[in-house]
Amino acid sequence: MRLVVIGGVAAGMSAASRARRADRSLEITVLEKGEWISYGACGLPYFLEGRVRNLQELVTYTPEYFRRERQIDVRTAAEVTRIAHARREVTLASGDSLRYDRLVVATGTRAIRDLPGAGQPHVFTIHDPGDAGRLRAFLVERRPRRAVVVGAGPLGLEAADVLRRKGLRVSVIHAGEQVLGRDDPALTAEVHRQLERFHVECRPSTPVTAIEPTRVGGVPCDLVVLALGVRPNVELAAEAGVRLGRSGAIALDHHMETNLAGLYAAGDCAEVTHLVTGRNVYLPLGTTANKMGRVAGANAAGRRERFPGVVGTSILSLFELGIAWTGLSEVQARRDGFSAVAVTVEARSRPRYFRGKSSSVTLVAERGSGRLLGGAVVGEQDTAGRINVVASAITARMALDDFQHLDLAYAPPFATVWDPLLIAAQQLVKLV
Amino acid sequence: MRLVVIGGVAAGMSAASRARRADRSLEITVLEKGEWISYGACGLPYFLEGRVRNLQELVTYTPEYFRRERQIDVRTAAEVTRIAHARREVTLASGDSLRYDRLVVATGTRAIRDLPGAGQPHVFTIHDPGDAGRLRAFLVERRPRRAVVVGAGPLGLEAADVLRRKGLRVSVIHAGEQVLGRDDPALTAEVHRQLERFHVECRPSTPVTAIEPTRVGGVPCDLVVLALGVRPNVELAAEAGVRLGRSGAIALDHHMETNLAGLYAAGDCAEVTHLVTGRNVYLPLGTTANKMGRVAGANAAGRRERFPGVVGTSILSLFELGIAWTGLSEVQARRDGFSAVAVTVEARSRPRYFRGKSSSVTLVAERGSGRLLGGAVVGEQDTAGRINVVASAITARMALDDFQHLDLAYAPPFATVWDPLLIAAQQLVKLV
Repeated sequence: MRLVVIGGVAAGMSAASRARRADRSLEITVLEKGEWISYGACGLPYFLEGRVRNLQELVTYTPEYFRRERQIDVRTAAEVTRIAHARREVTLASGDSLRYDRLVVATGTRAIRDLPGAGQPHVFTIHDPGDAGRLRAFLVERRPRRAVVVGAGPLGLEAADVLRRKGLRVSVIHAGEQVLGRDDPALTAEVHRQLERFHVECRPSTPVTAIEPTRVGGVPCDLVVLALGVRPNVELAAEAGVRLGRSGAIALDHHMETNLAGLYAAGDCAEVTHLVTGRNVYLPLGTTANKMGRVAGANAAGRRERFPGVVGTSILSLFELGIAWTGLSEVQARRDGFSAVAVTVEARSRPRYFRGKSSSVTLVAERGSGRLLGGAVVGEQDTAGRINVVASAITARMALDDFQHLDLAYAPPFATVWDPLLIAAQQLVKLV
Repeated sequence: MRLVVIGGVAAGMSAASRARRADRSLEITVLEKGEWISYGACGLPYFLEGRVRNLQELVTYTPEYFRRERQIDVRTAAEVTRIAHARREVTLASGDSLRYDRLVVATGTRAIRDLPGAGQPHVFTIHDPGDAGRLRAFLVERRPRRAVVVGAGPLGLEAADVLRRKGLRVSVIHAGEQVLGRDDPALTAEVHRQLERFHVECRPSTPVTAIEPTRVGGVPCDLVVLALGVRPNVELAAEAGVRLGRSGAIALDHHMETNLAGLYAAGDCAEVTHLVTGRNVYLPLGTTANKMGRVAGANAAGRRERFPGVVGTSILSLFELGIAWTGLSEVQARRDGFSAVAVTVEARSRPRYFRGKSSSVTLVAERGSGRLLGGAVVGEQDTAGRINVVASAITARMALDDFQHLDLAYAPPFATVWDPLLIAAQQLVKLV
């Protein structure tokens, strides 16, 4: 039995590793078209910053490690050009072909960069280690002074944060009204305040149609970072007959199997179930890719595991301010047919004598049932813990009535006796 | 209609405040036998440390504030000596009596100090602001050098932490085998390691039978802190015919009503339902007291609210190490009739390049169902967030199968792509 995995980053290497643990006798080959495998793409902004000194620090394990310790044959610069699933065979760009019994497609994404002028040498994406390496070299060698970041998703804001802290003047230009792909005016307002505080200009509702040589959207610059999001790499699978979902990413069942038996997919090339709406959505994220990869790998090796889905949790640090959200925003919830109510509260997250600062907590619930649908937290380092409590409660389909009484840990170094989460729940429970 | 509340700290003031919001016309009187009301007792160790400069900083609101802003008549030095519920009347030590329609008993606790020699001037408890004020004065004026803390619950360890950081030699002596009242050898081992690291001697399994003038349990000392736990103040209620639970604290229904209609109780004088076992237990904690007080106050004012119970979440900081637990330990779970399995994992809670240190996570689950029963986390500041995720999942009766796939927030400044919680769940799921 041979398992072939196409793609050697988060989902692909998780799938291969899990398959190995599930079946010691399986022959496992990973085909990665690039030169880097098993890296943490979410660390790339911190490589630009210099906190991560070299790109190898972001690599969890090398091909040699996988070969030696896990008996996984990892081939880099191995681009698959065709999947012939009827024959259980993949063809490589080299002309070689490889037979398989089970296949996991983990082809990931590519950065969107189809803008006129995007090919100029001062225009960068931060999609893979190669990109990041080139951008860091540009920063060191060319010492740009004014950067424009196009796009205000998490990566765009992280890029703005890093470039600003390296001393550049930075403008963020984006087409949408709201930042972070989240339809949440309160969250957007918090982001704007923080950008202003650190002198980063932000221009919403400004579609960029071209990158001019010395300016973007009227803003002069000598560095452009494109953070317009990603597209799933689905062509290979689609040509093999794999069904795509409405989002354009690969459609999967909860076992990470495609419409073709024995052909699995995982990670950023595929859709995932949103546990609040029950719909399949495209939410490419490193953590999800790893989880999907594990389940795909287990099942490709003969197990029967299930990945239920996600609730859409995200977090980023913007000049040390934690900004996080999960589930649905109030606007999204209404759009999805829920009768939604929401509150936002500001409350101290630790006592004053532990230098506690104010946190902002938004909760969204369904009128009538009180079911928690979403939330957002803006605050200090403990923002992650708070959004995770909301994410867990949403996953469990908890109602506000239980949420408001959650037995959260309290001691002055960590929290206030009334956690901001509970204060928000107490206020929202009056409205449902 | 008049509501009388006996006790003016966490539960009592929460009850009075909530009753006021529920009914603007209610006459509300709070009778507090001491001189302090509405204070955060959990902050007392930080007053000893000096981080809290004066005791007033721990007071949320003054009697004047309650009178003026909430029309609540708060009387201090007002000790109730008798409840005559048939006549709806309380008698005060002064001889005065007061009629009521509804009564909330929030009489709290007293520190256990019935040891021979406990009355000596160098022997202290840290139970209320008066105690803490006297101990701080003793530290300043007498400059003790060697302290013995009797008891290894959260307060005992917090006292040891504070005294050690103030430069004293400190020994902790306690009767039990395990610290923190938690039957968890892994947690106990972590505490012992941390105490050793900071040169605090800890003697388990050492019952103290008397406080000698210059030594305790053979350890010479010039300061003794008794942290033997608390006893609920139930005598007043019991004499009035209020039923006590098996723990000796006041028995309540989920509306915080006692066996006597119209007589409510809340806070540390009462039992609470443990949501994992469904049993009523005695777990006096500030957060729970506040929640119970709110529900008691609402219901005493004519609402019909419910406090479901707790899962036994606690946290403390021991020389900046977060130590937290929730639900049942493996040993407790077995004792309570569960077929329990557990794992402890050590994993980095943030990437190395964000100076992430190792966290220890223990999870306990029921064999077969995979239902999560308990957990413990030892680590940095983010310990609170992690234990809260476990607490929320336990409250929701989540099984490991869902817990292992929780959509937790990930970005390098906050977490690792595989959170220690998820790693622990993945390991434990194999054992259930």
